[in-house]
Amino acid sequence: MPEINRRVLLESRPEGWVGLDNFAFDEMPVAEPGDGELLVRNVFLSVDPYMRGRMNAGKSYIAPFEVGEPLQGGVVGQVVASRRDGFGEGDWVSGMLGWESYSLTDGEGVLKVDPDLAPLSYHLGILGMPGMTAYVGLTAIGRLALGETVFVTAASGAVGSVVGQIAKNMGCYVAGSAGSDAKVAFLTDELGFDAGINYKSAGSAGKAVRAACPKGIDVHFENVGGPIFEAALFNMRQNGRIVLCGMIADYNVEFSELPPGPRGLFVMIGRSLSMQGFIVFHYPELCREWVIKGSKWLAEGKLRYRESVAEGLDAAPAAFIGMLKGQNFGKQIVRIDEE
Amino acid sequence: MPEINRRVLLESRPEGWVGLDNFAFDEMPVAEPGDGELLVRNVFLSVDPYMRGRMNAGKSYIAPFEVGEPLQGGVVGQVVASRRDGFGEGDWVSGMLGWESYSLTDGEGVLKVDPDLAPLSYHLGILGMPGMTAYVGLTAIGRLALGETVFVTAASGAVGSVVGQIAKNMGCYVAGSAGSDAKVAFLTDELGFDAGINYKSAGSAGKAVRAACPKGIDVHFENVGGPIFEAALFNMRQNGRIVLCGMIADYNVEFSELPPGPRGLFVMIGRSLSMQGFIVFHYPELCREWVIKGSKWLAEGKLRYRESVAEGLDAAPAAFIGMLKGQNFGKQIVRIDEE
Repeated sequence: MPEINRRVLLESRPEGWVGLDNFAFDEMPVAEPGDGELLVRNVFLSVDPYMRGRMNAGKSYIAPFEVGEPLQGGVVGQVVASRRDGFGEGDWVSGMLGWESYSLTDGEGVLKVDPDLAPLSYHLGILGMPGMTAYVGLTAIGRLALGETVFVTAASGAVGSVVGQIAKNMGCYVAGSAGSDAKVAFLTDELGFDAGINYKSAGSAGKAVRAACPKGIDVHFENVGGPIFEAALFNMRQNGRIVLCGMIADYNVEFSELPPGPRGLFVMIGRSLSMQGFIVFHYPELCREWVIKGSKWLAEGKLRYRESVAEGLDAAPAAFIGMLKGQNFGKQIVRIDEE
Repeated sequence: MPEINRRVLLESRPEGWVGLDNFAFDEMPVAEPGDGELLVRNVFLSVDPYMRGRMNAGKSYIAPFEVGEPLQGGVVGQVVASRRDGFGEGDWVSGMLGWESYSLTDGEGVLKVDPDLAPLSYHLGILGMPGMTAYVGLTAIGRLALGETVFVTAASGAVGSVVGQIAKNMGCYVAGSAGSDAKVAFLTDELGFDAGINYKSAGSAGKAVRAACPKGIDVHFENVGGPIFEAALFNMRQNGRIVLCGMIADYNVEFSELPPGPRGLFVMIGRSLSMQGFIVFHYPELCREWVIKGSKWLAEGKLRYRESVAEGLDAAPAAFIGMLKGQNFGKQIVRIDEE
């Protein structure tokens, strides 16, 4: 049995941007699993935009993190002790566990992972919640059809990069925006996007989106909010669907400082547009479907995937903050321990 | 046969607010119907917010008015000469005809009206396009269910007043906003709304909406845009639906002057909200259903209806401008001729 559990705690709730001082570390003895429990050695941790919301007090669709307690996130790890039926020592699992080296869990929401299906960390990204989000958003919310035009923001990110590739595999025209020339080159050269926009250097967002999607947009997949979102809105085609997945631009802002929303929502009337937000966990069937389809496409070389790996649990806060600022390139994960 | 046709022409396209100088009048000889045509004596003309969009150049879901030509609108009139099968002299009809005393038409979109069903002018309001819009919006777009909470802006207007009454007849809790204390009293005292807000004197829009809808909003029916819209958004319940019917606040504004949109669209994600624009003419079955249901409810005393009647074709431009500014109380129509 391991002896020491190192943990990352929420030291204080951020106001505006998250800082390193909102986190603290401690070490505790590793607890032994009680009846029906598992002890998991955490190997990979996912840092994702939605976690910013959990740092605030107050209800949301998911409970807030508690001050003085470990943060939580998607983890892939290995069972080191089990008193729960169906899980044995050495099994690989994924679940919502703590930002810590060992997690004790009653197994709720913990799934076994097949280590032969894909690299283990993929279950935090392309085959995990971000990939599922892309699939649910394009299918259930966006109702994407063959040959349509898709536009996606934060297109090189964990969700956006999968959105674009699913749409290409479905025979669609795909364009996206990202925050550097290197990221845009990744979209068009490696992921097969038809067009890309560097939103930091593009000048007029409206002209850039129009040039990238000359026929207009049927499905817009929004991860960011801001000027590109507004430009996408004005470039929607009749009966277009806007998939609201994220608004990362708003996550680090106090209510009174919130930027204005997109002008011109009235275009939604004449063009019969719909806009819908969603939570991926409300679509468990589609999530399972994606793991099967995504694994197959990976094996067939129909999906590319890029990760940004921070080394060690102590690097998790900085990796999280960097991800919120768009400094990562590809899905940001943290390697807590060796496989 | 009548001899003189007086017409209201679009003299120039407005920039920003419409003015009387954007209109001109002329008189022409009344034309005789050719083969397959009808000549209609126009009795009532409807002025509606969507017409503002048709005064601009450029494509929309409906063709723009042409400078130097008569404007068009919903009309109820009587056939004075017919060379079209199915229509005879003396028949009452409704259709999209000209702002003029006599219209020649090939009959496309012209429907016979039963003069015994309800007062003739009702076919421009509660039984016409505004009433159909309320019904389609609440049912097909809002998917309203028994016992839910509905909030509607411009609630005393042609569409809003029907929205609220349909929802009450469906067993829902209904609140709405309007622009004067008299209009708010009309909502609660005459139409049966559960709560009303005078948006001009309410102070904090957020607090006013929260007080009017203490359980939150399931279906928000938006006719205006602006601060009340934003407040409604923040008060939506999980899985709420936002019906985008109109954005009259934006209609008289140049693109560069458009006000910002609602902040906090990110709440649509965590609460799984949807927002959808629509065009009533895309739902012809529901429109026919409404004429039957609305007539029945009127006969049973389950619907109240208020009109604001401007007298004479020459009063049409001022009536239209007043309606855009919210000066009317109830559905604004123009009486062109005696019944």
